[in-house]
Amino acid sequence: MNQLARFLLLLALLISTKTRVVAALRDPLDRPNFVLFFVDDLGYGDLGFTGHPTTSTPNIDRLAWNGKTLTTWYSGCALCSCSRAALMTGRQYPRTGIRQVLGTVDDLGLPLEEVTIAEQLKKVNYTTGIVGKWHLGQRLAYLPGNQGFDYYLGIPYSDDMGNGKQTSCPGNKAEDPTEPVQEHLKGKPIPPPDGDYAAWYLPLLYQEHNKTRIIEQPLDLTKLAQKYNRFATKFIEDNKDEPFFLYFPFNHVHTTSGNNDKWDTMPNRQFASCELKNRTKRGAFGDALAEVDWMIGNVYETLQRLGLEENTMILWTSDNGPATPRRFDAGSYGIFSGEYAGYPWTGKASTWEGGIRMPAFAHWKGQIQPFSRSSQTISSMDVFPTFSHLAGVPLPSGIVLDGRDMADILLQENGQSRHDFLFFYGFCNGHWPRTGVTAVRHGPYKAHFCTSPGLGAGHESMTVHYNKYPLLFNVEEDPSETFPICDGNTLPENDPDARAAIERILRAYAMEKATFEYGKIPPLPPGPGEGKGHYGVCCNRSTNCSCESLWDDNFQSRLFTVGSEEHHARYHEYLGEENHMKRAT
Amino acid sequence: MNQLARFLLLLALLISTKTRVVAALRDPLDRPNFVLFFVDDLGYGDLGFTGHPTTSTPNIDRLAWNGKTLTTWYSGCALCSCSRAALMTGRQYPRTGIRQVLGTVDDLGLPLEEVTIAEQLKKVNYTTGIVGKWHLGQRLAYLPGNQGFDYYLGIPYSDDMGNGKQTSCPGNKAEDPTEPVQEHLKGKPIPPPDGDYAAWYLPLLYQEHNKTRIIEQPLDLTKLAQKYNRFATKFIEDNKDEPFFLYFPFNHVHTTSGNNDKWDTMPNRQFASCELKNRTKRGAFGDALAEVDWMIGNVYETLQRLGLEENTMILWTSDNGPATPRRFDAGSYGIFSGEYAGYPWTGKASTWEGGIRMPAFAHWKGQIQPFSRSSQTISSMDVFPTFSHLAGVPLPSGIVLDGRDMADILLQENGQSRHDFLFFYGFCNGHWPRTGVTAVRHGPYKAHFCTSPGLGAGHESMTVHYNKYPLLFNVEEDPSETFPICDGNTLPENDPDARAAIERILRAYAMEKATFEYGKIPPLPPGPGEGKGHYGVCCNRSTNCSCESLWDDNFQSRLFTVGSEEHHARYHEYLGEENHMKRAT
Repeated sequence: MNQLARFLLLLALLISTKTRVVAALRDPLDRPNFVLFFVDDLGYGDLGFTGHPTTSTPNIDRLAWNGKTLTTWYSGCALCSCSRAALMTGRQYPRTGIRQVLGTVDDLGLPLEEVTIAEQLKKVNYTTGIVGKWHLGQRLAYLPGNQGFDYYLGIPYSDDMGNGKQTSCPGNKAEDPTEPVQEHLKGKPIPPPDGDYAAWYLPLLYQEHNKTRIIEQPLDLTKLAQKYNRFATKFIEDNKDEPFFLYFPFNHVHTTSGNNDKWDTMPNRQFASCELKNRTKRGAFGDALAEVDWMIGNVYETLQRLGLEENTMILWTSDNGPATPRRFDAGSYGIFSGEYAGYPWTGKASTWEGGIRMPAFAHWKGQIQPFSRSSQTISSMDVFPTFSHLAGVPLPSGIVLDGRDMADILLQENGQSRHDFLFFYGFCNGHWPRTGVTAVRHGPYKAHFCTSPGLGAGHESMTVHYNKYPLLFNVEEDPSETFPICDGNTLPENDPDARAAIERILRAYAMEKATFEYGKIPPLPPGPGEGKGHYGVCCNRSTNCSCESLWDDNFQSRLFTVGSEEHHARYHEYLGEENHMKRAT
Repeated sequence: MNQLARFLLLLALLISTKTRVVAALRDPLDRPNFVLFFVDDLGYGDLGFTGHPTTSTPNIDRLAWNGKTLTTWYSGCALCSCSRAALMTGRQYPRTGIRQVLGTVDDLGLPLEEVTIAEQLKKVNYTTGIVGKWHLGQRLAYLPGNQGFDYYLGIPYSDDMGNGKQTSCPGNKAEDPTEPVQEHLKGKPIPPPDGDYAAWYLPLLYQEHNKTRIIEQPLDLTKLAQKYNRFATKFIEDNKDEPFFLYFPFNHVHTTSGNNDKWDTMPNRQFASCELKNRTKRGAFGDALAEVDWMIGNVYETLQRLGLEENTMILWTSDNGPATPRRFDAGSYGIFSGEYAGYPWTGKASTWEGGIRMPAFAHWKGQIQPFSRSSQTISSMDVFPTFSHLAGVPLPSGIVLDGRDMADILLQENGQSRHDFLFFYGFCNGHWPRTGVTAVRHGPYKAHFCTSPGLGAGHESMTVHYNKYPLLFNVEEDPSETFPICDGNTLPENDPDARAAIERILRAYAMEKATFEYGKIPPLPPGPGEGKGHYGVCCNRSTNCSCESLWDDNFQSRLFTVGSEEHHARYHEYLGEENHMKRAT
């Protein structure tokens, strides 16, 4: 480039930068917006940026590349509800009392005493929204509206926990994903669980300042993405001038199949909009993932359009590994194959790397170095303290927080992990529900105290306890957990580093076991309309929980209550002001 | 950006573009330069851009991102020599007669009748250079200088086929990689193979217009990368004004260990320069890979510095999958784990995806779309016809070419593969050496006719022949080959597409078997100084092939001969003009 060109370029850049600064009204570091994407059951291996050969995730890849890829991100749990409990609270899930997957008619939920990220951010006046799968309780009192979120649209649990509306895509030879389940139900009517018809049909809920409406039941899965997309982009548009937190836990790419299929034998199923069906090389799973990618692209395009990129930190990850028994439709843990196990069920529900090691990245234009990578150990429990720090909210006092601030890792070139020992609670220990420390990450090492297959295999017979020494891998050198350094019986003779690490690990493990406090979920008395057989989400019990859709693309009828104003008043009375106050401290 | 800024920016760009065009003297499409990187034994999973969590490959990643990632690239063979035979000739390796790994004292090599890529490009006056591992014959007549390459620097075979110089890195606690082998030899002297001491010590060869010198024997592996780097950058500098072809088959990241280790029991070893040892999280393998990355970064920096980016197409891939028995030091096949096998030896020497499915990308500034991806089926045999096409050289007549032109895939958005059936020749069939079709790729399907473990396990007992139907996977949906669509015994009942594909595959397989012609390597009479026990590369037989280094950083003493001018004259006489002519057609 010659002198003149260089001068003109400089001049142009100067002027354009100046224009830009004037346009950006908020200091990027002053209570930045947070967008937290949380895909369901997506393993490490299924993205373009993590090396999958045939999936199509251009929007996700572009965000990952233009941010910092976080290659050692562990979920707080290998199952849906508990991983969300850990994410929302920054605490090991057994502390919260959420120790299993919540069903559709459970009376349990994340205790209201727990402080969620949303409640943290409300303290400094963020507007908070959630779109997608909540799965921390479907009772009114446990829904997001009562856990710090101003707005919610979504299925309150997993997309396989009920049937969608029977639809088909015109001109598309692929079956509707819900159809075979419907056929199955037609042939062999099965009594709804606990006699509650609420569990038959998937509901789509909307909440606004804790007023709640059931928008659709059963919902149409082939149109869900459009609705989520509409909610997310509108939420950003409506709140563009003030700090917001958008939590987007997708229902995709959890397999769908209704309540009554037999694990391992049902055809594997996914869902996507008609426009996307059979459009990828990766089958129904690929279509569903492409739909996630489409939604993410739309959210980012909205941020760009509104000039919010520099004011918004995006975090992207998944809740747990793939449900491998669902074969093609479960996705892939990629390199985290846990080969030493000798069984293929090293994904969801196991604490092999495949069950808990998640794809992840952070993106924040102007703050996070593009094309950067960190392999520092991070837990999804770290989101709570990190968002708190960046938003300038003090951490809640009087509770044990297991997450650690990861802001250094995100914002600096060589930020270090604050997890000396990161314990993984799994499902093969003696407690009931069988929750206990099954593994721990310490430096480059991963130590297993108990291994068992994830979903889909005989847990009892394949469970191995390591009572003398842990089963030890160097997962920095051997991420596939193929070659153990210690097999659990004999210390590694020629490896003093590993021997010393095992000693430290055993001490830390003993301390963790001795001091850990398992939480209990305090019983919440039945609210209005609730009670045995009536804890599920049901639009109308007289029609077996099947109603016409109330969806309104423009959210014109946004203020509504369940049933009536009177019902809503009773509901608030039931929750009590005191409860609210307690949670807000 | 406001109007004025936009105008100035446009003006600046216009001026700078114009300056640029004047600077680029050659039309980018007129005989572009080719740089072909070929890593040794590197599996799919070990790069940043393919999702490895802890390796450090920033230069490779950046090139991959700024080019087109080729996610369905198959090697021509799962072993060193034969994969190189396929790459160099564009033909299935059994056609060339190279059907196994060549040793250090073999009298065999790639037949001179075969046309190599280098010989093709010489027809349109490319300058051709190779740096690294040749492995298609170590006899003078078979070396690169006689196969179309103007310049060569490298070890003519694998880095484990002899011992390096005993060196140690000051201030570095890591042992020198060659040391234990030396100790071993000291303790128990083992007779050199075939009585030829040439195999004891790794040689470093230099060739210039088919004049040859042994630069070092034994060579110093801790300084090899610097020498390769020097050669590669100087080659580009010297030939910047005319079309060149630089073939860079790295000796890294093949494990090192001398001749006499026992597979599976030796400590696993890699090599890297002292500066790089213990600098990565991925152990010795990571250090070696980081050194590859360093060399690639230097080559690209040289191309940039000389303004050759737009005139140079870079292809990057590997020869075969990881040597999994070498544990941590073998690298990883990543998602291509071949889980159905039930054994971990699905890498090198097997035709499971892990053995033949390679990481790959193409980069060509201005011609290849940055951040693009293709999952079209490509073989390394395609390089020959593709380079020929782009350089404007007609394909040789009278020979069967198995490779297909992939220029469309590289240069266009939706270029299609020309491999309807891509056959994989492996090592578990009946012929001796046991070479035959073991698998085939057809559309999304991979069909196995015979499966067996790669290196390091009992082949015979674990070999499975599929004589009725092939073992069939949809590797687009199931790249880990975990869930077979057909187990070899029963056709898939509910999958008419797969059934039809199996029929087509069986017909094509029968045709391939009926028409394929296995090549034989015509015997080449002993040349000067050659003969039984004297086919190896030896600087001086009277010192058991150990000599002082003649390395000269500036290549000042570039014209030399083996032994004497007289020797060299005899060598040319022995090769014969006729032979040269034949090969050049």
